[in-house]
Parts: sequence; structure tokens; C-alpha cells
Amino acid sequence: MLELLKQEVLKANQLLKKYNLVTFTWGNISGINRKRNLIVIKPSGVPYAELTADKMVVVNLKGEKVEGDLNPSSDTATHLELYKKFAQIGGVGHTHSPWATTWAQSGNGIPALGTTHADYFYGEIPCTKIMEDKEIANDYEEFTGQLIIDKMQGIDPLNMPAILVNNHGPFTWGENSIKAVENAVVLEEVARLAFYTKQIDNTTPPISSKLLDKHFLRKHGENAYYGQKTD
Amino acid sequence: MLELLKQEVLKANQLLKKYNLVTFTWGNISGINRKRNLIVIKPSGVPYAELTADKMVVVNLKGEKVEGDLNPSSDTATHLELYKKFAQIGGVGHTHSPWATTWAQSGNGIPALGTTHADYFYGEIPCTKIMEDKEIANDYEEFTGQLIIDKMQGIDPLNMPAILVNNHGPFTWGENSIKAVENAVVLEEVARLAFYTKQIDNTTPPISSKLLDKHFLRKHGENAYYGQKTD
Amino acid sequence: MLELLKQEVLKANQLLKKYNLVTFTWGNISGINRKRNLIVIKPSGVPYAELTADKMVVVNLKGEKVEGDLNPSSDTATHLELYKKFAQIGGVGHTHSPWATTWAQSGNGIPALGTTHADYFYGEIPCTKIMEDKEIANDYEEFTGQLIIDKMQGIDPLNMPAILVNNHGPFTWGENSIKAVENAVVLEEVARLAFYTKQIDNTTPPISSKLLDKHFLRKHGENAYYGQKTD
Amino acid sequence: MLELLKQEVLKANQLLKKYNLVTFTWGNISGINRKRNLIVIKPSGVPYAELTADKMVVVNLKGEKVEGDLNPSSDTATHLELYKKFAQIGGVGHTHSPWATTWAQSGNGIPALGTTHADYFYGEIPCTKIMEDKEIANDYEEFTGQLIIDKMQGIDPLNMPAILVNNHGPFTWGENSIKAVENAVVLEEVARLAFYTKQIDNTTPPISSKLLDKHFLRKHGENAYYGQKTD
Repeated sequence: MLELLKQEVLKANQLLKKYNLVTFTWGNISGINRKRNLIVIKPSGVPYAELTADKMVVVNLKGEKVEGDLNPSSDTATHLELYKKFAQIGGVGHTHSPWATTWAQSGNGIPALGTTHADYFYGEIPCTKIMEDKEIANDYEEFTGQLIIDKMQGIDPLNMPAILVNNHGPFTWGENSIKAVENAVVLEEVARLAFYTKQIDNTTPPISSKLLDKHFLRKHGENAYYGQKTD
Repeated sequence: MLELLKQEVLKANQLLKKYNLVTFTWGNISGINRKRNLIVIKPSGVPYAELTADKMVVVNLKGEKVEGDLNPSSDTATHLELYKKFAQIGGVGHTHSPWATTWAQSGNGIPALGTTHADYFYGEIPCTKIMEDKEIANDYEEFTGQLIIDKMQGIDPLNMPAILVNNHGPFTWGENSIKAVENAVVLEEVARLAFYTKQIDNTTPPISSKLLDKHFLRKHGENAYYGQKTD
Repeated sequence: MLELLKQEVLKANQLLKKYNLVTFTWGNISGINRKRNLIVIKPSGVPYAELTADKMVVVNLKGEKVEGDLNPSSDTATHLELYKKFAQIGGVGHTHSPWATTWAQSGNGIPALGTTHADYFYGEIPCTKIMEDKEIANDYEEFTGQLIIDKMQGIDPLNMPAILVNNHGPFTWGENSIKAVENAVVLEEVARLAFYTKQIDNTTPPISSKLLDKHFLRKHGENAYYGQKTD
Repeated sequence: MLELLKQEVLKANQLLKKYNLVTFTWGNISGINRKRNLIVIKPSGVPYAELTADKMVVVNLKGEKVEGDLNPSSDTATHLELYKKFAQIGGVGHTHSPWATTWAQSGNGIPALGTTHADYFYGEIPCTKIMEDKEIANDYEEFTGQLIIDKMQGIDPLNMPAILVNNHGPFTWGENSIKAVENAVVLEEVARLAFYTKQIDNTTPPISSKLLDKHFLRKHGENAYYGQKTD
């Protein structure tokens, strides 16, 4: 079942390696079929080079395994929370990519300090609050999803396709699983740029909202004029 | 038309990838034929691996497409401003290479802190002023060119073949499109060196004008003695 | 003798290169056969590309060579101290990997600032005290092992499979020689993350003990649920 | 003439590229035949991939070309000063490798902060004084050699096979041209380690002279016990 989606999610997970976003098996990507409300996700702890479409795991929105021999990613419950809340998204990803994780560990969002950031993220990339002890105890992965949703209140997830989970690392998403990986690549790049910019001058302010608009809307929405028209 | 120039500009764009100056499609190179006042430029949003000479776009100095099926780079208007103002240059490039972009985001020029810098750039690499809201609204890319030209007032563009656009990233240029890429490589390297030097000691002054002269003129101008004589 | 262990230790040493943990020959891995109390270790100063199972050196717990044409690693005495003290471990490694060595040179342990750290190391990765002059004079390598053991007092070595030797660099260990390398890879990654996190905000505190427990025990011990069940 | 030395020096120059010490043609290695007082050196401005033994240039100690179609490196005069002064050395190298150049640009020597440093350099790696204007005017490259020699007063060049030229970059040397490259690799590594160590704690002191002795003499001199005995 879902063979095309499995192929796409397989490729998305392999891209994590290609783009140097992962050490060992520290990252997972999923995709959803909205008609059937089923998601395809990486199996837990399996090296990217050993992944095949057959090894992908299908789960429903309750987190029950529908197909597959292997356990799904230990972060599956977090993915599910995001799919349930954000109807616009078709893919979710999680990595420990070093620059994004650095910001997550520091507990700070990533300010929009340049047009590279504005081309993809419509404002500061948020960082969740620190999880309280009682929230860690039960349903930890599900609660991680809740923290993300709380922080995203009032933000269109396609305008801000990334978040930092405090003390942990980034989650990204997009229209599909491949876009979730692309946003993880760009997140890593802007996290790096913001880090070094702040080292030169820690008081550097974010770019103006006018410049943020110009660049984000040059690439997104109906008046976009970057790239080639596609039918 | 312009088949040789297309081949050169194709190669120049491919070098962006080879020298690790670009993520995805975040960079573009162009070259000009001064006799015909036509420029060849990368199509917008096309991956470097998929580029061919046929896909290159030919535009005139008004920005009108003269040949090509694809849209030219969204930065074309900036390139054109530079060609119109700087008669000495034959190629222009733009990237979001990380070290140069870091300096651009910080709003600071890159001081000449060593001979590596002096071998290619005859003084501090300038950074443009922050664009005002009203300047962003219309003809943004053209106005970016204007900001560069304002900042370059009184500077020979072949003595300073790079600039940082504030909040954005670098533009470079040279005698031809290949030189524009080479200058982008060196810019990235000296941006890195300057960053780390300042981290060791933020009060490090620029090198003396005598040493700047010695190194720049050892490689440029009629008394140059670096490399091999070419006829 | 010990042909299987030689193959494993050979592979472990080759992984040092694959994972970019070593310059020239600056790292060595060993493994132990607990039934025979013999260890297999890299020969001193031999490039990784020239290693073969035949070149591996077998020594007993007194440090006497039992088999092999070449001298064992100059750090052999340190390895032996660890095997004699920590009955749980089956492999030991030493590198000068840059991020871990940076922390070792600074004389500071690596605080647990995120879940990446907590997935592998159950608390702050310790750093030994500075060696005194009289301790350097004789049996230097053996004394290095003693310093490590002193610092590990009361800590289960499988809960903390890495340490920093002050002014020098890291030692890691694990259930076998391959695990010792894997822990060296993760050590390098968390050393890097902790460095940059502290640069953003030097006052960043360690994660809560609850979160540390959650992540370490999610991957280790009888209630682990990361990865696939293995029989 | 000097075919074996040409082969060695060719290889040494190619190693600069392999070890990522050079951008474009920013580095050169030479070797000397002490019996004939002739040196073989890289031609100026030729890419490493295009080098052949035939293209190597032979010069005498006065800097006169004895064989070769191409111009020798523009740094030849500096190499010659070092060969004339340091009878123990057989190879010299110069690069703009980024970490060593960073320290050179800051005008600081590299303190011995760990055993990695002590394994190769017997104390702080010195940095020359800033060149005065009148010294830059004439025989600049020869005077660069003089500055190095002044700074090395009283130091055995084989105990300290590297120096930083202020505002410029490193020179290294060794028993032969291959060793000069190896010392450039290690210099780059210890420059990086020292930079980051100082970022963690700028007051980190050098290691004790006892530890410096232990590590340097473990690898050098008649009581060395690292590696394999060679006849």
C-alpha cells in the first residue's frame, strides 16, 4: 500500500544523509496520505544506507502500525501531533543537525537577520518552552508535539516550516516529505549564518518587516516571481 | 547566438557548485558581450547540475529577454546596473556564500587584515547601507544595483571586485564571468580569515597601506611579478 | 590467535579514519578477549590505510607482547589500566579529535546541554585533573590510566563511556571496540554542540535530570524503546 | 638534473592540495640538494593538478634559475634565506592555510596548550614582528626570510619547524620537503585547537614544561619510543 508515498519518504530520508544533516540514525522523515489518513515513516534505528521502500512503516493517526515489519521511529507520536493539527502539511522531519541543535540547546529562537532567512521563513524561527518534569514523565513524544503546537499558535505552518524544540533539536515540515528535508537544509544554513552574525555583533537587529515581506513573498504566494512558472 | 559566452557563463555557474559557494540554486553568474551589449545569465531557480548552454538566457541592457525559454535570474536587474556603470567588467556574480553573507548580515565591511586579502582586494571590502522601506517597494533588484554603485563611488571596480549588500549577501565581478567566480571564492576565504582574526583580537588593525600596495601590485598592474608571463 | 577480535579491532581502527576523527596516525583502538585476558591493539605509528589484521598486536594485561611483529600503540599502558579496572568494557579508544581535544585542552568537562548528549552520556563528560610533574616522569601512560580511573570513581563506565584527559584529548570505551569508536563519534558531536551553545549563552544550564533520564533510558537499559528488538 | 628531488618536491606540492591546505595556487614547497646547493621549487601560479616533475624549477642559492622553463614561486627568496641559515633543514613550505593564517593575521604566536602541539612543536610557535614600511619597499621576499631568522634566534629549527609571518601566513620546514608539508598539516590542526581552547577560556595557560618535554621527546630524539624502529 501507499507505494508512491513510500518511495518519496524513502528518498526524503536518504536526502538527510546526502545533505549532511545526520550522524548515525539521528533523523527521521515522514509523509502523509491525507485521503486515507495514513503516514509513512522511517523505521527506528535503521541506517539510511539500509533503507528500502519495503522497510518503511505505515501507521494511522492513532499511532497504530498498519503495515511494516519494523518499529516506527521513536518520534512517531510527535509527527502525528503535527499532522493532526496542521492540515496544510504533507511531510514532517526531525534531525539533530548541528547548527539548529545549537540554537535549540541555547533555548533561543533564530532571528531573521538576512534575506537568506526571509526567502524561506517568515520571521523568527521559534523555540519551544522548556518541558516541565511532569510533562516528561508520560507520553513524552506526544507532548513534544503539543509544545510545538502551543508555540505555533496563530502562525501559518507553511509560512514558518520549522521550529526548535528546547534542549533537543529541530522539527521541520512542508507540503510534502521532500520539502520537509529542504526546509531542514535551509534551517541549518540560516542557523549558522545567524550564529556567526551575532558573534560579529551581538546587537545586530532583525531585518525590517518590509525586507522580510519582499523576500518571502518574492518566492511564496501568488505574486512570487522567483524561478520558473509551473502548470 | 553568443555560443562561446554561453559556454563560459555555463562553466562559471557550475564552478559555484564546485567551490561550495551555493546551497540549492542560491547563486547566479552572468557575462556580457560589450560589442553587442547583451548579457548571458543563469535561468532562475534551475539546479546547477541541470544547466546547459541552451538554457542560458540572453537579455539586453534594458532587461528584455532576447533569447531563451526560461526566466532569467531574479537578480538580473542588479547585474544590469553594474554592467551599465562599470565599463571595465565582463562578468558579475551573486551568491549567499556563508562567510561573506555573515559579514553582510552584520552590516560591516571586511577589513584588510592580511596579505591574502591584499592579493585580491585593494582595501576594505565595502558593505552597502541598509535599504529604506520606500526603496524596497519598487524595482527592488534594480535599486540593489544602485546601492552598490553609490558605495563604489570613486573606486575602480577591478581594484575592488566585491561588495556586500547589507542584510543580504555578496556580489562580485571581474574581467569575465570566470573571474567573477574566482573573486567570490577569495572573498569567502578572506571573510572567514577576518572573522576569526577579529575573534582572537577585536582590535586588530588593518595592514599598512605599504603592505597592501606591495601585495596587490605584486599580482595586478604592469609591474606584477606573480605567476607566468602570458602573451 | 584471536583472529575474529583482530578483524573487529582492525575495522574499528579503520572507522576512525572514515569518521574523520584522526589526523595522520593520531588515534588507536583496542579490544579485549576477557576469557584469555589478552588485548588486540593497533601498532604504533602505522597509517590506517596500511593496517591489516596481521599487523595487529596482541598483548597481555601486564603489557607484554604475546604476538605481532610491530610495537603496540604507545598508549597501550593506558588501555590496560582501563581494562583491568572496568570489567564491563570490551573496547577502548583514544583520539585527538578536534572538538573533544579542545575541551580537554581547556580543562573543562562537557556539560549535558541537550538530548543528543543525554542519548549517549549519562551526565557531564568528566575531565581529569592536570598531571603533576612527578607523575609525568615515570610510567606516564600508565599514570594517565590512573587519572582516568580516579575521576571515574563511582560512575558506571557504560553510563559514561568517555572522558577527557586534561591537556591531552579523549578516551572512549564500550561493550566492544566498535562501540568505543561510535562513542568517540558522538563525543565529538556533543563537544561541538556544547561549545557553540556556550558561545551563544555562556550561562546555559545543563538539562534537567528528568530529561537526562528520559533520553538516556529511552536508548539504554531494560526499558529502552529506541530501535529494533534484537534477540 | 635532480630528478629524484623533483619527484619528491612534486609530491610534496600535490600533498598541499590533498590535505586541504591551499586555495587556488596559494602555497609552495621546495627541497634542497645540500651537496650541490641547488633547490627545486614549485613554479609560480601553476595549479597543483597541472604540475609535473618537468615543470619544477631549479635555482641556486643566489636565486638564479639553473633549469626550468617557468618562473619559480614568487616566494623563492624567502625559501633561500631559510636554507642558507638553517643547515639542518631539507625542505621549506609556505601556505595560507586558514587557521595558521588567522593567528598570523592577529600577530600572536600559538601557545602550546596541549599534547598534540607538544608532539611536534617544542614550545610556542612564534610570530614575526610587523614589517616596517622601509623593509617592505625593497627585496620584500628576502626580508621576509630575515624576519623569520631574527625571530628564530637561539631556537633549533627542527625543534620548532614552523613560524607565522605577521599579517601574512605560515612557513614550515623539516628534514625534507615531505616533512615540511606534514608540519604544515599539524600546524593547521594545533592552530585550530588553540583558537577554540582560547574561546572556551582565554586565560588557559600553556602546558607545563615537563609535559611538553615528555611528549616532544617521546616522538623526537634518541629516546623516542613512538612508532616503529627504522634502521
